[in-house]
Amino acid sequence: MNGKDFLVQYAKESEGILNEYFEKKINEAAEIGKLPAELLQLFQALATRGKRVRGALTVLGYEAAGGKDHDAILEASLAIEVFHAGILIQDDIMDNDDMRREMPAMHKQYEAIGEKLGVTNAAKFGESLAICIGDASFYLSWDLLLNSKFEEKAKLKASQFVAEYITRLVHGQILDIANVELNTTEEKNILNVIKHKTAEYTGVLPLLIGFALAGSHDEEKEEAFKKYGMALGNAFQIQDDILGIFGDEELGKPIGSDIREGKITCLTLHLAKHGTADQKKLLTSMLGSDHFTDDDFAKLKQAFKDAGSFDHAHELGEAYVQEGKAAIPKIAEDKDHQETLDSLITYIMERAK
Amino acid sequence: MNGKDFLVQYAKESEGILNEYFEKKINEAAEIGKLPAELLQLFQALATRGKRVRGALTVLGYEAAGGKDHDAILEASLAIEVFHAGILIQDDIMDNDDMRREMPAMHKQYEAIGEKLGVTNAAKFGESLAICIGDASFYLSWDLLLNSKFEEKAKLKASQFVAEYITRLVHGQILDIANVELNTTEEKNILNVIKHKTAEYTGVLPLLIGFALAGSHDEEKEEAFKKYGMALGNAFQIQDDILGIFGDEELGKPIGSDIREGKITCLTLHLAKHGTADQKKLLTSMLGSDHFTDDDFAKLKQAFKDAGSFDHAHELGEAYVQEGKAAIPKIAEDKDHQETLDSLITYIMERAK
Repeated sequence: MNGKDFLVQYAKESEGILNEYFEKKINEAAEIGKLPAELLQLFQALATRGKRVRGALTVLGYEAAGGKDHDAILEASLAIEVFHAGILIQDDIMDNDDMRREMPAMHKQYEAIGEKLGVTNAAKFGESLAICIGDASFYLSWDLLLNSKFEEKAKLKASQFVAEYITRLVHGQILDIANVELNTTEEKNILNVIKHKTAEYTGVLPLLIGFALAGSHDEEKEEAFKKYGMALGNAFQIQDDILGIFGDEELGKPIGSDIREGKITCLTLHLAKHGTADQKKLLTSMLGSDHFTDDDFAKLKQAFKDAGSFDHAHELGEAYVQEGKAAIPKIAEDKDHQETLDSLITYIMERAK
Repeated sequence: MNGKDFLVQYAKESEGILNEYFEKKINEAAEIGKLPAELLQLFQALATRGKRVRGALTVLGYEAAGGKDHDAILEASLAIEVFHAGILIQDDIMDNDDMRREMPAMHKQYEAIGEKLGVTNAAKFGESLAICIGDASFYLSWDLLLNSKFEEKAKLKASQFVAEYITRLVHGQILDIANVELNTTEEKNILNVIKHKTAEYTGVLPLLIGFALAGSHDEEKEEAFKKYGMALGNAFQIQDDILGIFGDEELGKPIGSDIREGKITCLTLHLAKHGTADQKKLLTSMLGSDHFTDDDFAKLKQAFKDAGSFDHAHELGEAYVQEGKAAIPKIAEDKDHQETLDSLITYIMERAK
């Protein structure tokens, strides 16, 4: 199956299972109290709105590694989706982001509950509850994985990957916070964050969970999964960076939000290094600033094109795509899985166009 | 062995292992970046300062259920200690507590790092990093449990208990936040929080982790562990409440801090119900207030004694002690373990004296 179709089919297939799972957990929460159940219900709306790339990669990793129990892996694959929605809640608190997936961020929705209840400091109340539901999501994620219908050994191995990679993700998040606060422009620091926060977490971990749940112990295969996953994760990040500048409208984000937030990407790094004096000046004046017009932003986009930053990002991404493809023969013998892996990594970069 | 001695011996035996574990994890973090390693190091100082009751209960549960690998359970028992230190970090953010275990709270220590680095909003920076290290602690805790030297089946069962009970702990925390914000004085609401936030989490979960790691499948024993653990956890909470009023100096807390924070306990509930009009007035005027003298506090203490609230708390605690003791014969056949369980629950209440 084509990679894009695989994502679409997974999103469809997993929808009902995810909602069913939430219903069950909301009922359990309701036995403890009304408020936890209410908060989980709002969280459900957030969690079911994702693109669910990570869950799809878990299924793909499982099937490419020879796993055959489709229903079981569908349910287990939701572990990383529930985790991801929860970590986004806490990210939004740290970044002061008020919107997520076209809804008010979770802490803003909980703040509104606090206002209705008449608490003194509704903003603080909202943030505290959002930290809690983030934490709850981590343990619901474990619940999904640990109670999935696989052999103990397989579940344990998958769990060990989760503990290892999420610890690194959190360290990456710490570096990211420091980079943003200190306006770091050192490429090494930026790449370090991308490696742990995106490539390993988004690309490698889901595949390894699937690989482990399939019961595979093939170390060569594990290495190939890591190579492919890193390449896919890196391509994913680059494509995100490109969309952050050139895809604003399609993404439904406010125009230039990545620039306003002062996000350092492969595009801004390239322009800062290779742009003309005027282009560099324009970039510096706009990066992290709230005071620029749509016209300024159009000029900056043109600068990215003229200085070759746009092409550079595509070339970088393309190199990752090729790197990922090279690992495919060692992941799967089956032609159908090979095709899915091949077209998926291409699609990950192409959706920037 | 006597229960108190058991706690003391565990604290001693686990000290080196906990520090060794942190050294290893700090080194791993340092490979990712200097800052994560630095934050973990500060966290280590917090995590190693606990009384480690939960870790000791894990070992006790394991040995009472027939487990024999002392070194392995010592290491695995640290999972709940690392988790506990991490959840305290996030609690302190939610409660705006600036001190913890006689040191500045973690978010205050990280704020100081932000100030040194010259970030714009050091308070926000400190809180964000503290949320991250809290999250990291959860996954380090999993790392300790999942990589401990036990059978896959046993580790999986212990993990399932963790996922279940920590989810409920978080829901309890949500209710606690709401109770405090809304000045709830309904006994039902208060007891609900104590059940999930203290009794199940502090009393039951550690014992069940030990029980599971011992490879026991005896359902009758599991039920007995739950009964004993609930009773111990409830006694622990009552004793904490008594110490919160009558043990300030020994605990190194500022005088009357529980009253200042407006904490609703079995003591305040009793006085509010059974006190004289004057006593009730005194309580209402002081609870949650920052404006009272040491003299006022001495008067309030006397009121707790005169109205019988102090005795009531002790009777409640004593009832839990008896409830717990009744479950012991079904937990352990061995006389030595029975003695430890028996004297431990007595000690938990006695340390209030």
